[in-house]
Amino acid sequence: MIITLKKGAKRKEVESVIDKIKNLGYKPHVSKGKDVTIIGMIGEYAEKYKDSFEAMDAVEHISEIQKPYKLASREFKKENTIVKINRNVEVGGKQIHVMAGPCAVETKEILFNTAKTVKASGATILRGGAFKPRSSPYAFQGLGEKGLKYMEAAGEKFHMPTVSEAMTVEEVTLLSKYCDVIQIGARNIQNYDLLKAAGKQAKPVLLKRGMATTIKELLLSAEYILSQGNYNVMLCERGIRTFEDSTRFTLDLNAVPVLKKLTHLPIILDPSHGIGIREHVGTMAKACIAAGADGLIIEVHPNPEEALSDGPQSLLPDQFATLMKELDLIAKAVGRELL
Amino acid sequence: MIITLKKGAKRKEVESVIDKIKNLGYKPHVSKGKDVTIIGMIGEYAEKYKDSFEAMDAVEHISEIQKPYKLASREFKKENTIVKINRNVEVGGKQIHVMAGPCAVETKEILFNTAKTVKASGATILRGGAFKPRSSPYAFQGLGEKGLKYMEAAGEKFHMPTVSEAMTVEEVTLLSKYCDVIQIGARNIQNYDLLKAAGKQAKPVLLKRGMATTIKELLLSAEYILSQGNYNVMLCERGIRTFEDSTRFTLDLNAVPVLKKLTHLPIILDPSHGIGIREHVGTMAKACIAAGADGLIIEVHPNPEEALSDGPQSLLPDQFATLMKELDLIAKAVGRELL
Amino acid sequence: MIITLKKGAKRKEVESVIDKIKNLGYKPHVSKGKDVTIIGMIGEYAEKYKDSFEAMDAVEHISEIQKPYKLASREFKKENTIVKINRNVEVGGKQIHVMAGPCAVETKEILFNTAKTVKASGATILRGGAFKPRSSPYAFQGLGEKGLKYMEAAGEKFHMPTVSEAMTVEEVTLLSKYCDVIQIGARNIQNYDLLKAAGKQAKPVLLKRGMATTIKELLLSAEYILSQGNYNVMLCERGIRTFEDSTRFTLDLNAVPVLKKLTHLPIILDPSHGIGIREHVGTMAKACIAAGADGLIIEVHPNPEEALSDGPQSLLPDQFATLMKELDLIAKAVGRELL
Amino acid sequence: MIITLKKGAKRKEVESVIDKIKNLGYKPHVSKGKDVTIIGMIGEYAEKYKDSFEAMDAVEHISEIQKPYKLASREFKKENTIVKINRNVEVGGKQIHVMAGPCAVETKEILFNTAKTVKASGATILRGGAFKPRSSPYAFQGLGEKGLKYMEAAGEKFHMPTVSEAMTVEEVTLLSKYCDVIQIGARNIQNYDLLKAAGKQAKPVLLKRGMATTIKELLLSAEYILSQGNYNVMLCERGIRTFEDSTRFTLDLNAVPVLKKLTHLPIILDPSHGIGIREHVGTMAKACIAAGADGLIIEVHPNPEEALSDGPQSLLPDQFATLMKELDLIAKAVGRELL
Repeated sequence: MIITLKKGAKRKEVESVIDKIKNLGYKPHVSKGKDVTIIGMIGEYAEKYKDSFEAMDAVEHISEIQKPYKLASREFKKENTIVKINRNVEVGGKQIHVMAGPCAVETKEILFNTAKTVKASGATILRGGAFKPRSSPYAFQGLGEKGLKYMEAAGEKFHMPTVSEAMTVEEVTLLSKYCDVIQIGARNIQNYDLLKAAGKQAKPVLLKRGMATTIKELLLSAEYILSQGNYNVMLCERGIRTFEDSTRFTLDLNAVPVLKKLTHLPIILDPSHGIGIREHVGTMAKACIAAGADGLIIEVHPNPEEALSDGPQSLLPDQFATLMKELDLIAKAVGRELL
Repeated sequence: MIITLKKGAKRKEVESVIDKIKNLGYKPHVSKGKDVTIIGMIGEYAEKYKDSFEAMDAVEHISEIQKPYKLASREFKKENTIVKINRNVEVGGKQIHVMAGPCAVETKEILFNTAKTVKASGATILRGGAFKPRSSPYAFQGLGEKGLKYMEAAGEKFHMPTVSEAMTVEEVTLLSKYCDVIQIGARNIQNYDLLKAAGKQAKPVLLKRGMATTIKELLLSAEYILSQGNYNVMLCERGIRTFEDSTRFTLDLNAVPVLKKLTHLPIILDPSHGIGIREHVGTMAKACIAAGADGLIIEVHPNPEEALSDGPQSLLPDQFATLMKELDLIAKAVGRELL
Repeated sequence: MIITLKKGAKRKEVESVIDKIKNLGYKPHVSKGKDVTIIGMIGEYAEKYKDSFEAMDAVEHISEIQKPYKLASREFKKENTIVKINRNVEVGGKQIHVMAGPCAVETKEILFNTAKTVKASGATILRGGAFKPRSSPYAFQGLGEKGLKYMEAAGEKFHMPTVSEAMTVEEVTLLSKYCDVIQIGARNIQNYDLLKAAGKQAKPVLLKRGMATTIKELLLSAEYILSQGNYNVMLCERGIRTFEDSTRFTLDLNAVPVLKKLTHLPIILDPSHGIGIREHVGTMAKACIAAGADGLIIEVHPNPEEALSDGPQSLLPDQFATLMKELDLIAKAVGRELL
Repeated sequence: MIITLKKGAKRKEVESVIDKIKNLGYKPHVSKGKDVTIIGMIGEYAEKYKDSFEAMDAVEHISEIQKPYKLASREFKKENTIVKINRNVEVGGKQIHVMAGPCAVETKEILFNTAKTVKASGATILRGGAFKPRSSPYAFQGLGEKGLKYMEAAGEKFHMPTVSEAMTVEEVTLLSKYCDVIQIGARNIQNYDLLKAAGKQAKPVLLKRGMATTIKELLLSAEYILSQGNYNVMLCERGIRTFEDSTRFTLDLNAVPVLKKLTHLPIILDPSHGIGIREHVGTMAKACIAAGADGLIIEVHPNPEEALSDGPQSLLPDQFATLMKELDLIAKAVGRELL
């Protein structure tokens, strides 16, 4: 990192910064200008000490040079990571995968109907929530383990791997038993015990960016999982919170090329939450593919008016079927495959 | 609009709201619940009086029903507006148009070189700034009228209509003489005298959304131009300001389908400013087309390291040429044409 | 809630909305304008069904009338809640309380030194983290239970109740044994199992707003705790994430009067995180008191340069001592007491 | 500025950066680490060339060391600037000044009534808009020059200097004739011709921060005025746009101590716009004083329900009178004076 000292920093202050760098086992690179002295402190994990230098009165500003994450970085691993999921699904290669299904598992019938139809349309992974994070304590909170059993049965019947969300360490254990991919939701992006638990089991993880998480923080949260030994992590952009109130969130498509540059992990996009308006989900799904997404996660419900959550952004099965054909055209236009 | 009264509003207070509605010439629709009274006030321009009802103590909340803009709305005009530009360029139809060129006009040579090359790659409109809005008073501020003359000459030589930015009423007059499209920049999105001046002349206008402008406010600013009689307005999304600092702005692609629904005006996207990083501009340009853009505006410079502004986000001519072919594939995949 | 139908909604569509309201056991209030039909659905928990109406094609917009939280609302309880903490500390009355101490418990010596000095300056509650949420997996993560034992010992020795953060359900149990107030941090504002766990034990809870949490969501998260039977909840504003990058966060002081109006719970402010720059913490602390804070939480460290976290925003003991006298003057100017 | 090169930058690339620095007349400070090379380029206006270095492929990141503004900085002028306004009003010293009056000048009677009452309560400057920037072209746009004449007459009658907003260069000329302080509004913060016009005349300027303007950009806009020779500039924080929608804007009080550190110019706060809700304006006004404001600008209207703009946030004269006494207590508590 580069430490810029305040104008007029005294000699003694400059020396105390230099001494501190040496004491930590690094070599200081001092560059004295007419007014300003800058000191480089470069080496593995130097950024870890940023706070303690910033707390020194003589320090004006510190800029980080090295990335604070390692295992998640392109520097660490040049080739794209291919995440291998049960039933021979591989995410991160030429094939783009679409995860589809209802927001929440409500009944076995709805789930099976939806699974059948999204499978027929080309979805390769079945999504459905059994444990639902809801802003209000009075809203439907999911079927729990019963929902997971339905997911497992639907996956079995329609030959699709399944993805569902875990909100607690216990739910991670349950999910690793019943499901094929464990989703960590946007609200839990900095729930570090949960991240560690996801890192200590073997199933692939779908990690969703929080609504105010920077790209750097998203990669640091991924690092929590990777550093526990689980390298099968997919990152998911699902909309950030901004001043614009005509959409539910602002889908940050800029994040796709930026992440592709910084990390080797596959990038999944969630246009359903990212815009939150049914009639616009398809348009944004197309933009996601064009931006380089390795996969999409889309909410589909046979009867959105009766859905217990996220009805306004769920596609009807027919809309989804049409969309998949349109998405395939975009995929081919960017040298990928979808159907 | 719908006026919700506070719980426990007194009879007298309710009546004073009702009287006010009647005095303004509207018919109140009163709906009394057990706890809450709500009063509808529906009719042309009712929303104009929102503030004066909100200022009443008995009023809890007002929600707008009707859009505060009219001429810009889909309700007013169902079919897409085709903006006709000199040299037979039409924006808003099946053909997607790319406006390309240097951020600022610097020298005649650079401009002509760039024009020649972007024309060859398929750009149909030449962009270049003669009056540059710069955050710092010490930065290069543009060549002024001389720059406009170069633009006119380049347009003539390469048979391309031109677009350039006006920051003052006087510059609108100058531009309407030398250029084919007048750009109102993001910083001037609520400079109402400038908007009116653009509305009083005949050349088409490219109106850029401000970095903290809501979609509703963007359409209200367009309404300023339309209400002066100039209906040839193109709206441009160019990135909004959010907490994310790894990109220059956050390109709000959600805005494309939302705007397409609300307005008949063509939508142009600016991926150069929207992400601000050269190597990612192309990827975002693809996403823009997939999201339904009617056109793009892209910065190209033969030698970005020497550019007097926006070098970091300018494409090299070769990069632009390759990109245009890739964009054409996406355009076709969404049923449009580009090359 | 008020349901506005789309212009031109068909009679059949209008009736299906009305039927749905009746089937849910509510009485519809229909108001037909020339162009637009609006339907009121008012009654306890009507807002719970918002999503399922929004998912109907004929629905243009829904505005909520009733608050989605109940126990946390002023409507439910008019008088300010006084939260009673061990050692006879009461938060929410005339007396303003200052919680002070190091960000993290590092060593017994530093903690005891800090406790002694902040107590002498007038702080009434000792803060210190034993479990630290850190963006990076490679940063210091806290002393764990050993840190809690130090906190308990320091509280005993200096006769101060203590507050520390829990990030997991297990940590809630540990903290309810060793500490007097359980803090739920900003990153866990929507970690619902954690909120429920905090609601099921008896110690008071300090609930920090997340960096992108709306005021409504903050109150819904509080509702999770209250609905489990624990009414001793203090809300804490600690800065939200905005585009401004010259400060760590943007302290949202607007939230103080807005929350005071909506809820009976005490409001605590955290100027240390809210601005993140040591030399400005004191100024913001003054503004917090003037805005109506019931308490403050401030980081103090005898040697910030050596602090393992948050050194840049920690006050020195001398600065804290001076500040407390200044804060007392502001407290008196707004009719409160501090020292 | 500090230029960090990409890992693995080639020798030739490093040299081309060094040569460019030399060619621009600066001395490069090179510091080679094991992986990374950093180059310092320090000297007056070095930051001006940031873009052209960022456009080089070998450059990873540039951090600015020197501030891009000069005349507005504390480095340039250590002592606080005291802005001298007609009728012996001085802003920036111990005395805190309150500018009060209606949002817009509507009739002579309302203006005079309001002026009389705010003067009696202790306001020292009369505010009132003659040219009103309105989001909608269909809303009341102000009385124009007639309004200015009323302002001049009211100032004369009640011995108060006046402040009013200019939106065009022509209006600056008009205002400098009729009024004592020229306000540049939030929407025009980067309307550079307007800033220059304000800098070329002699009356003091009240420059309002835009809703998405960073503190650095605010100071750069001030620099536009100062660099034309007018040093009598007051900066005004009036709320920024964030995700929080329970208030009109988020008043950024952090900006007060940060600005006080960076600049010598007086800081005015606008709690009326900053929160936008009448019953909370007073509370926020107190917080403003505690945070170190040199002055406030507050909207007062004898009959807010009939106000043609900003009724919901205008105080009644009685509320204003009570508030002024309360503010005086806070002012004294921070060593200032108000009444």
